[in-house]
Amino acid sequence: MEKTTEPEVQQEPWERIEEILEETSGTSAELRDFLDELAPGETARALSRLDEGAQTEVLTALEPEHAAEIIEEMSDAQAADLLEDLSPQQAATIVDELPSNEQADILNELDKADAQAILEHMTPQDAEDARALMQYPEDSAGGIMITEFLAFDAGLTVEDVLQDLRQNSENYSDYAIQYAYVTEKDRLAGVLPLRDLLLSRPRRVLRDLMIAEPLFFRAETPLDELRYFFGEHAFLGVPTVDMDAHLIGVVLRSDVEEAAAEEANENFLKVSGIGNEELRSMPLLTRSRGRLSWLSINIVLNILAASVIAFFQDTLQEVIALAVFLPIISDMSGCSGNQAVAVSMRELTLGLVKPYEFLRVFLKEVSIGIINGASLGILIGIVAFIWKGNAWLSLVIGSAMMLNTILAVCLGGVIPLVLKSFNSDPALASGPILTTVTDMFGFFFVLGFASLMLPRLVG
Amino acid sequence: MEKTTEPEVQQEPWERIEEILEETSGTSAELRDFLDELAPGETARALSRLDEGAQTEVLTALEPEHAAEIIEEMSDAQAADLLEDLSPQQAATIVDELPSNEQADILNELDKADAQAILEHMTPQDAEDARALMQYPEDSAGGIMITEFLAFDAGLTVEDVLQDLRQNSENYSDYAIQYAYVTEKDRLAGVLPLRDLLLSRPRRVLRDLMIAEPLFFRAETPLDELRYFFGEHAFLGVPTVDMDAHLIGVVLRSDVEEAAAEEANENFLKVSGIGNEELRSMPLLTRSRGRLSWLSINIVLNILAASVIAFFQDTLQEVIALAVFLPIISDMSGCSGNQAVAVSMRELTLGLVKPYEFLRVFLKEVSIGIINGASLGILIGIVAFIWKGNAWLSLVIGSAMMLNTILAVCLGGVIPLVLKSFNSDPALASGPILTTVTDMFGFFFVLGFASLMLPRLVG
Repeated sequence: MEKTTEPEVQQEPWERIEEILEETSGTSAELRDFLDELAPGETARALSRLDEGAQTEVLTALEPEHAAEIIEEMSDAQAADLLEDLSPQQAATIVDELPSNEQADILNELDKADAQAILEHMTPQDAEDARALMQYPEDSAGGIMITEFLAFDAGLTVEDVLQDLRQNSENYSDYAIQYAYVTEKDRLAGVLPLRDLLLSRPRRVLRDLMIAEPLFFRAETPLDELRYFFGEHAFLGVPTVDMDAHLIGVVLRSDVEEAAAEEANENFLKVSGIGNEELRSMPLLTRSRGRLSWLSINIVLNILAASVIAFFQDTLQEVIALAVFLPIISDMSGCSGNQAVAVSMRELTLGLVKPYEFLRVFLKEVSIGIINGASLGILIGIVAFIWKGNAWLSLVIGSAMMLNTILAVCLGGVIPLVLKSFNSDPALASGPILTTVTDMFGFFFVLGFASLMLPRLVG
Repeated sequence: MEKTTEPEVQQEPWERIEEILEETSGTSAELRDFLDELAPGETARALSRLDEGAQTEVLTALEPEHAAEIIEEMSDAQAADLLEDLSPQQAATIVDELPSNEQADILNELDKADAQAILEHMTPQDAEDARALMQYPEDSAGGIMITEFLAFDAGLTVEDVLQDLRQNSENYSDYAIQYAYVTEKDRLAGVLPLRDLLLSRPRRVLRDLMIAEPLFFRAETPLDELRYFFGEHAFLGVPTVDMDAHLIGVVLRSDVEEAAAEEANENFLKVSGIGNEELRSMPLLTRSRGRLSWLSINIVLNILAASVIAFFQDTLQEVIALAVFLPIISDMSGCSGNQAVAVSMRELTLGLVKPYEFLRVFLKEVSIGIINGASLGILIGIVAFIWKGNAWLSLVIGSAMMLNTILAVCLGGVIPLVLKSFNSDPALASGPILTTVTDMFGFFFVLGFASLMLPRLVG
């Protein structure tokens, strides 16, 4: 294989681009030569490291087809950001070169007015297709499908099709062809895998050869169902029809998988408190504001939970050793609960558990909670005894740890299901809800038990 | 589209299977009929909800091809678990029906002796292929590639190839054909997309038609590089060669994407402290032990961090209000730091940052740390002032929060890079390291500053 990762000492592509831009102001053959050798994905990454002015310079220096390849490698938000800085004419020549579904996605990310201006400068056919696709929500079959596909009438023969393919090979050259679709009176009637075309006698008629009554999506089928469908079936693409059963596009497995992978990634970021896509090349204040909005909710919840401690100040004053254990209980309950959250989120994604199965998850978790709670409780109890030599203190800390672990594990397992069944996003909200509740109860258990046993703890 | 999600009131597939197994002991036509109507993915999910005995009953009741389709939908670990419970003969007839790369993956998951017993009962050709593939690490081109591919000598014509395809259509019917590979003296010489075969004149010779000097992998190319490669290039499959440039297999994009998606999922689980795949259908003690191993490391780290509090007990005794703020500082620093961890992990995965770029990440994070640290510090300072009316207390808490947020954000950004450059797994270790360090410093800042200002806090 070609070497695709550069050795560590070599100059990074973005550094080289900055250098070229500095040396040669204006359009530059050297820049184009350099970028020709980079893969589109590499160029996309290099662009994301440059400032806005340099990004615009690079995009305008390139041929539109090449610029489009690079744009395709970016997230829609990033691509829209870049196109906004170009003139509508320049942007339109690049957008013209994108596949139809990417056109719609990126135009949808732009302000209405900007999108309109670009559409007006696009080739009429492409603009019309893009406008049609923009009608559908981005997370539906209509929003994901491509409109470049092969369709033939059921009366044609294999020979006819092969001839058409050879004659129009130029037109079809950007098509991601895996199947030919067969229509009767313009309505979807069958599917023909390309390999069947190759493996069949030239005289055969498509109607006899095709897989009849093919599975299909309606334009409004949501992404969840598409993903589930491709998980169940090995198809590379599925035809999509409008209300009149007319074939309007093809949903490709790769596009659905890309959408799913993006969602998995977003889930991971959301769980960590990054609500929107953040790249370190974004402006400081955007990044800081994005993170702060989550942090400020969290700090309020934290203050709420800690107010339980304030309520028990007198007990704490008497047995100051308790203060050492409060953060441990809080943190460990968070850990135990988050494990259960992760397992539930994964089982939800894989479809192994349905949102309404609270009881099953609760029963499965409560036994783990008892085992792990008892283990952690005994462990922390021993530590407390070694430190202070007071068996009652051990008992207070150990039993609080045990009870709170059981609570955290059960809550952690169930919260994502509850949020999902209320159509909230479990990735974003499970963590804060879990830790607030377990912190409050954890502090309450430790300080409440201690208050009850105060004479024995002080004595 | 067909309805693929069941309405909530309907009986779940696994419930129906249990019912059938109870009603009809032994092999049952009814069971087979029921399973014929489920998609393989659905059956795989249903199986994962049954107990071991029922799983074995279901697998043995099915035709081997059908059982293989279901096995393919499972994770390798789950599949190996299931096959272990069958006799080697039964297992071998199912494994024979799997694609070559799945055979090797699943056999690798089994004990050596079990795998050996199954291999002995497989058809000799399949067993030989599987043994060859098992030589390669699972996360290398050799471990991921399939050995079912089309290869033709460069001297043949398009006509010759089409004829061969038609004559052997039966043999090729399970092949995931996207390209034909062209060889000269058995060495890889070119690639021919199937569409080019369709779009070309019958008389043309492959040598003139093929894309010469194709990109290829060596068997030992690691998964990271494969993923990077498919990120850069739009190929559906890439040929793989041995040391003598002989074509030995094809790495499919879909298999690399599947491996990548599995890793993304594992990362998410690992960050939450689930080291190995956990499903709620697994035995209780396995699940509890898996979670406890991570929890017990965490509790030790937590005790270590909390020992800082014990060190400042006298200060805490004087100003008991500080105890309320300790868990808040600990939790908020964890939140801020984990945001930076998530951004770094994502940028590492996307290749937007290289592990050696500590300094860049540090510089990018320190400014966010200052802004967010100041915001959170001022906020918590105000809360402290409202509660106790002591400006010095506000100052102590606020400045500790600010300093510790800056520390957490910088550490959170840098730790994944450091771990990655030492070839450790950032998903597993970043969290515990981060929270231990930030807890210790957080407690130290609060209690240390308070000790210095003790007279003004008590006064």
